[in-house]
Amino acid sequence: MIQAVVWGENVHEKKSSIVADLYPDGMHNCIADALRTGGIDATTATLQEPEHGLPQSRLDRTDVLLWWGHAAHGDVDDAVVDRVADAVCAGMGLIVLHSAHFSKIFKKLMGTPCNLTWREAGERERLWVTSRHHPIARGLPDHFELEQEEMYGEPFAVPEPLETVFISWFQGGEVFRSGLTYRRGAGNIFYFRPGHEAYPTYHDPNIQKVLVNAVTWAASPETRITDVHAAPNTDVADALEPITARGPKLHADGEEGYR
Amino acid sequence: MIQAVVWGENVHEKKSSIVADLYPDGMHNCIADALRTGGIDATTATLQEPEHGLPQSRLDRTDVLLWWGHAAHGDVDDAVVDRVADAVCAGMGLIVLHSAHFSKIFKKLMGTPCNLTWREAGERERLWVTSRHHPIARGLPDHFELEQEEMYGEPFAVPEPLETVFISWFQGGEVFRSGLTYRRGAGNIFYFRPGHEAYPTYHDPNIQKVLVNAVTWAASPETRITDVHAAPNTDVADALEPITARGPKLHADGEEGYR
Amino acid sequence: MIQAVVWGENVHEKKSSIVADLYPDGMHNCIADALRTGGIDATTATLQEPEHGLPQSRLDRTDVLLWWGHAAHGDVDDAVVDRVADAVCAGMGLIVLHSAHFSKIFKKLMGTPCNLTWREAGERERLWVTSRHHPIARGLPDHFELEQEEMYGEPFAVPEPLETVFISWFQGGEVFRSGLTYRRGAGNIFYFRPGHEAYPTYHDPNIQKVLVNAVTWAASPETRITDVHAAPNTDVADALEPITARGPKLHADGEEGYR
Amino acid sequence: MIQAVVWGENVHEKKSSIVADLYPDGMHNCIADALRTGGIDATTATLQEPEHGLPQSRLDRTDVLLWWGHAAHGDVDDAVVDRVADAVCAGMGLIVLHSAHFSKIFKKLMGTPCNLTWREAGERERLWVTSRHHPIARGLPDHFELEQEEMYGEPFAVPEPLETVFISWFQGGEVFRSGLTYRRGAGNIFYFRPGHEAYPTYHDPNIQKVLVNAVTWAASPETRITDVHAAPNTDVADALEPITARGPKLHADGEEGYR
Repeated sequence: MIQAVVWGENVHEKKSSIVADLYPDGMHNCIADALRTGGIDATTATLQEPEHGLPQSRLDRTDVLLWWGHAAHGDVDDAVVDRVADAVCAGMGLIVLHSAHFSKIFKKLMGTPCNLTWREAGERERLWVTSRHHPIARGLPDHFELEQEEMYGEPFAVPEPLETVFISWFQGGEVFRSGLTYRRGAGNIFYFRPGHEAYPTYHDPNIQKVLVNAVTWAASPETRITDVHAAPNTDVADALEPITARGPKLHADGEEGYR
Repeated sequence: MIQAVVWGENVHEKKSSIVADLYPDGMHNCIADALRTGGIDATTATLQEPEHGLPQSRLDRTDVLLWWGHAAHGDVDDAVVDRVADAVCAGMGLIVLHSAHFSKIFKKLMGTPCNLTWREAGERERLWVTSRHHPIARGLPDHFELEQEEMYGEPFAVPEPLETVFISWFQGGEVFRSGLTYRRGAGNIFYFRPGHEAYPTYHDPNIQKVLVNAVTWAASPETRITDVHAAPNTDVADALEPITARGPKLHADGEEGYR
Repeated sequence: MIQAVVWGENVHEKKSSIVADLYPDGMHNCIADALRTGGIDATTATLQEPEHGLPQSRLDRTDVLLWWGHAAHGDVDDAVVDRVADAVCAGMGLIVLHSAHFSKIFKKLMGTPCNLTWREAGERERLWVTSRHHPIARGLPDHFELEQEEMYGEPFAVPEPLETVFISWFQGGEVFRSGLTYRRGAGNIFYFRPGHEAYPTYHDPNIQKVLVNAVTWAASPETRITDVHAAPNTDVADALEPITARGPKLHADGEEGYR
Repeated sequence: MIQAVVWGENVHEKKSSIVADLYPDGMHNCIADALRTGGIDATTATLQEPEHGLPQSRLDRTDVLLWWGHAAHGDVDDAVVDRVADAVCAGMGLIVLHSAHFSKIFKKLMGTPCNLTWREAGERERLWVTSRHHPIARGLPDHFELEQEEMYGEPFAVPEPLETVFISWFQGGEVFRSGLTYRRGAGNIFYFRPGHEAYPTYHDPNIQKVLVNAVTWAASPETRITDVHAAPNTDVADALEPITARGPKLHADGEEGYR
């Protein structure tokens, strides 16, 4: 059974009655419930826990991490961000949700500003499937609607994705690449746009289906890569084809090299 | 005329007589000379200069930056790295050379460890063109050789590139994706593998041709993007299609949003 | 100076007074005029000419071919299609316009059905730039509108592109990937969605700018590849590294191999 | 259980005692046996059967088709090729093996010549994994060897892949992108280089592991897309957002459109 951890910033739920009414147990628990219904073993972690609930030992047994953040991106400890990034490169899946486009972990893994335009007007969003039968779009119609969502508009400053799975149409006239896949090291990454805290998005059956699909797609059964930063100096004597060292040398045999 | 800046770490040249003999004026000057011969207006910058020779005013008028580093990656100021990353996203081209696979700027823009295997044995490297007539491979034969080079081997932990332009064969039995293109924001990036300091690689005519081609390919005539991190909140009243705000709101009109 | 040929099917212009009124000299001449204003040496070719105006000798000196077809895709000679495909793989650029998504040449180069949904209702289309400062989007604002266009909707059955440059928003609720880049062999390909014959799209300044940009982007100064189908049997005696033939053999030395 | 069909040309096995000795039941049966050992329900089809063993009814219930061809590419019926291409776009997986780089089906789906250089000298091939922990590389070491193989060399005229999974090193000095993924419509495609008929490649455990992995990766549990060429004209009255038709029209309501 796939082990998923839903990381929630858990700030709006505490400060806003709008959000608390929509998600009495927090957005993270709503998402985790949906995953469990979809046959995934899901637990939660939040910003407020020690190490934000993400010690190394927990990441080691997490197949896929989902990340929702917004108001407190800056409060996330850099050491935890580095740890998560290494876990992704070692083979953990990562699903980045909505306003987490500006999270430290997403910006770190993308290498770009990840900025966009936005408007909070409760307007209609319609998501179109642009990669039919993609594992993340399984069981979905060619398009589906969210009657009230926050608008995110292009240009979205992310690298060209491996695949564009969804594109959104917004009532106010914008479009957005709402479902994008990436791979970083051995880890699968999926960015999924919808999920503004002021609306009941994570209660929507199509959204829940995408999340279950995405976690299933991102999970890898392989043993994690042990050291994702290793850069081994292979000995001349151990070369796969017989060669003789020649010419000048700056490095000693077996030396670690520079970083 | 394209304005290029060749950034050299300039450490080996000062400490090793092998490198100093090969590159009496430093590797950066050898590269800059080759670019000038190719019709590019090239200057140099080094680690030892204030702000590593890369103040904002200089980046603003640089079309393409070339980066060679190795022994002193850790000495590069994070503020300069952030400045260069922003300049790339704003439209400046970046050519990353050889051991700069482990530079702060490359790892930041890739979002991955960028590690590999290596061996310093002066073995033969043969580069094969895998994207015929790519602008970066213009004027080159289908393959060319470097009689002595350091080996870099796969797996190379970088994101899937836009295009693979060169793949290297090594005498000792390894292969490596030696020419890779990326785009980050409005900036073109090219990683080019050869260039070990102990060998005369940057004197090689084919290598020089690749460098001239790459700078020409990476340069953009467009005015730089002013603020690569801007995430404007667009007013409901200014929506491109007439909409009426509805539903709950957490943000005030014109608010800046969270980071 | 870049040599462009604008291929027009030239059928609607002859049969429909609506189209004839909009494009008295044919759509192809309107497009060619725009290219000439942009500094490109543009001529035209039509379905009705011998070999559809595209003999080998003309393709040999064409840098970029633009293709508009709709009502008569089936009348295009397969031999000409094969010839154009080979020219693209040899290094000629190709710009595929609007309803030419169903042309023989585009389907052949994509390897997919290239189908979509559509509606002719004169609705508003808004194109968003998704790859800022891409050479094809140079000088354009982040979005621009066509007040009346035919709708094309996703899913659009094409391969994942190298880059998505434009995405369209339609008044009736659909989205479409309207600007896509591909490379086939040494040839650059750009698909550009707008251009329904019943509307004045090719008179629009932004559309004309995209066409000039796209032709400039697609053109390659390199000499064409001579035989794009060659699969040379390299002799053991000529191997780049000394090897001795061993084991069983089914092929004779220098044999041509199977197709 | 995944349903795979291994299509074998089955010509060399009949004409060459070398091949018949290596593969007494044909290469296709050797491959099918390996898949069955890997938990896949595999059957075979050959060129000599009616409709080459691939009637529509069989493709309809095939999750993944594997294709090995060489000496008789030209004898494959175009109607069967079109049928297989449509099945792929509808969601069937396709694994293209070795000399099938020149098969009609692969060239059709790629849209390029798919040519390369080659040499039959029984030289050593070493495959390197370039996408660690990719589902197709699961359980494999970072590299593995085939002591005797035919050489295929770059440039390989295929489109830029979604992912490069393997790159081969050859004893005689060449490299080749030996494992490439593509998606065409709803279908996953994997090209895998090794498999010359004169050598025991398909008896190799690592090769068999790749084949089992690739079939598992390519299979999709989704119901097939019914008509992969459909281009529905959506009625104005049925538009998802209320619009009024305006401007000139060339098409009647509900019309089928041109092909």
